[in-house]
Amino acid sequence: MVLYIIGLGLGTEKDITLRGLEAVKSSSALFLESYTSVLCVSKEKLEELYGKPVTIATRDMVESESDRILSGAKDGNVSMLVVGDPVCATTHTDMMIRARELGIKVELVHNASVMGAAGCCGLHLYNFGKTISVPFFTEGWRPTSFHPMVLYNRRGDMHTLCLLDIKVREPDFEAMKRGRTEYLPPRFMSVNVALEQMLEAADVSEDKEKGAYDKDTLCVGMARLGQADECIKAGSMSELLSEDFGEPLHCLVVCSDDVHELEMEALDCFIVEGSRYKDWRTQQQGGD
Amino acid sequence: MVLYIIGLGLGTEKDITLRGLEAVKSSSALFLESYTSVLCVSKEKLEELYGKPVTIATRDMVESESDRILSGAKDGNVSMLVVGDPVCATTHTDMMIRARELGIKVELVHNASVMGAAGCCGLHLYNFGKTISVPFFTEGWRPTSFHPMVLYNRRGDMHTLCLLDIKVREPDFEAMKRGRTEYLPPRFMSVNVALEQMLEAADVSEDKEKGAYDKDTLCVGMARLGQADECIKAGSMSELLSEDFGEPLHCLVVCSDDVHELEMEALDCFIVEGSRYKDWRTQQQGGD
Repeated sequence: MVLYIIGLGLGTEKDITLRGLEAVKSSSALFLESYTSVLCVSKEKLEELYGKPVTIATRDMVESESDRILSGAKDGNVSMLVVGDPVCATTHTDMMIRARELGIKVELVHNASVMGAAGCCGLHLYNFGKTISVPFFTEGWRPTSFHPMVLYNRRGDMHTLCLLDIKVREPDFEAMKRGRTEYLPPRFMSVNVALEQMLEAADVSEDKEKGAYDKDTLCVGMARLGQADECIKAGSMSELLSEDFGEPLHCLVVCSDDVHELEMEALDCFIVEGSRYKDWRTQQQGGD
Repeated sequence: MVLYIIGLGLGTEKDITLRGLEAVKSSSALFLESYTSVLCVSKEKLEELYGKPVTIATRDMVESESDRILSGAKDGNVSMLVVGDPVCATTHTDMMIRARELGIKVELVHNASVMGAAGCCGLHLYNFGKTISVPFFTEGWRPTSFHPMVLYNRRGDMHTLCLLDIKVREPDFEAMKRGRTEYLPPRFMSVNVALEQMLEAADVSEDKEKGAYDKDTLCVGMARLGQADECIKAGSMSELLSEDFGEPLHCLVVCSDDVHELEMEALDCFIVEGSRYKDWRTQQQGGD
């Protein structure tokens, strides 16, 4: 009688741990949380590996029907499968609290998350500050509250991991007006859109907040981290604006001005052609 | 002809991913990095699961004989097994750079790390600032450079993850004087020793740096994260000083003063008996 919250990691169905697979095999019901991130394999692939059906859990379901999900755990084990690591999204915290209130044992099965995998560009994870989220701007809603956070991180010589907006199962208001419940196709923010919005946010910020970053600031754009075709490119904000990172999910790191020499050495192979940061290493060696 | 750097996660031999296990099975040589962290299972357990021998890689070996490790990867695959995630320790970054220089393909197999698992106390990972390391103080060496970092994090409403010192394979200088190469027994810093040292550091810091934290600051002590007997206790620094966290590894979080209500709700079940933070929730509800 356990609620397992199982991290699936970042790549394919094979990124589950042996412990996670054992928990899945012991469960009578499997739910896949599908709205804070996306897996790059189909539900069918998972079902094939697990040998049992998987139910997609939408935001509505996790937030308003968590008792229904949890009721299964009173008779047999229930597994909630999440992309990445169970503790990286606050939704699962809610469900854990609710389960404990109901007297259901909760076990986490950890796995890799984007917050750990972001270190594979060579920047040291212990130099990262607060993580920010960049939401899709709309005509009337262009929040810039992330800007002072990047400023604070950079003033303290910290890198900033930027998580980029995901819109999954957004209601189609036009269809709703016609009395139909329909959803818009999913949207995933690209590194390019994030950079555009972030540069706009820097432009419109109050004077005291200027200087968090500008078009010349070193950034690292990353796509499909932990997957076979992951893409990592580093360069200034303006250089990365026109780079193609391919399919989602994307994320971005705004580097501190104080990138350690070892970090820069590891970043070197990801610097885009023609970048102002391209010759950093040669310049340093020439200066010896 | 691949160098795999494979995260083993935090718990037992079963925390390896299916992808990691496939890489291990395809390798002709397996090395276990053993000095930046420790696994709670024996090398023999790993060998039993993998069906092949595992060589312990000491710091000396990884730092000065990395070419010998890498030479294997020219003929067949080589796996370097690391506790946690491959990108969380800088040693592996060095080896990755060296491998790329030698033209050897490097593949990372991600897994859970302490930097992700630290979120299982209920604090949100995106609210963490720079990670600090607390070294064992000696009679003549009591560095306090972590103190201003905690101050900066807390002024920016960020939690601070504190990684605690590990001394593995430290040379025994007394034995060396007698001409013998011997090593001291391994030492792992406890939450208690870390708190003592951190309070001392706050005491001796210059005035401008005072106020990073004091004995009443809310902290979370964690031991054996991701393992079956993991231990999480929250309370003020002085309250946690006398709590027993058991076997290593330990780590510690110094909370920001701005703990979010949802975080506090999740932390609630870890608050120690009699703590000044114990009635936080009731107080809040009473105040409605």
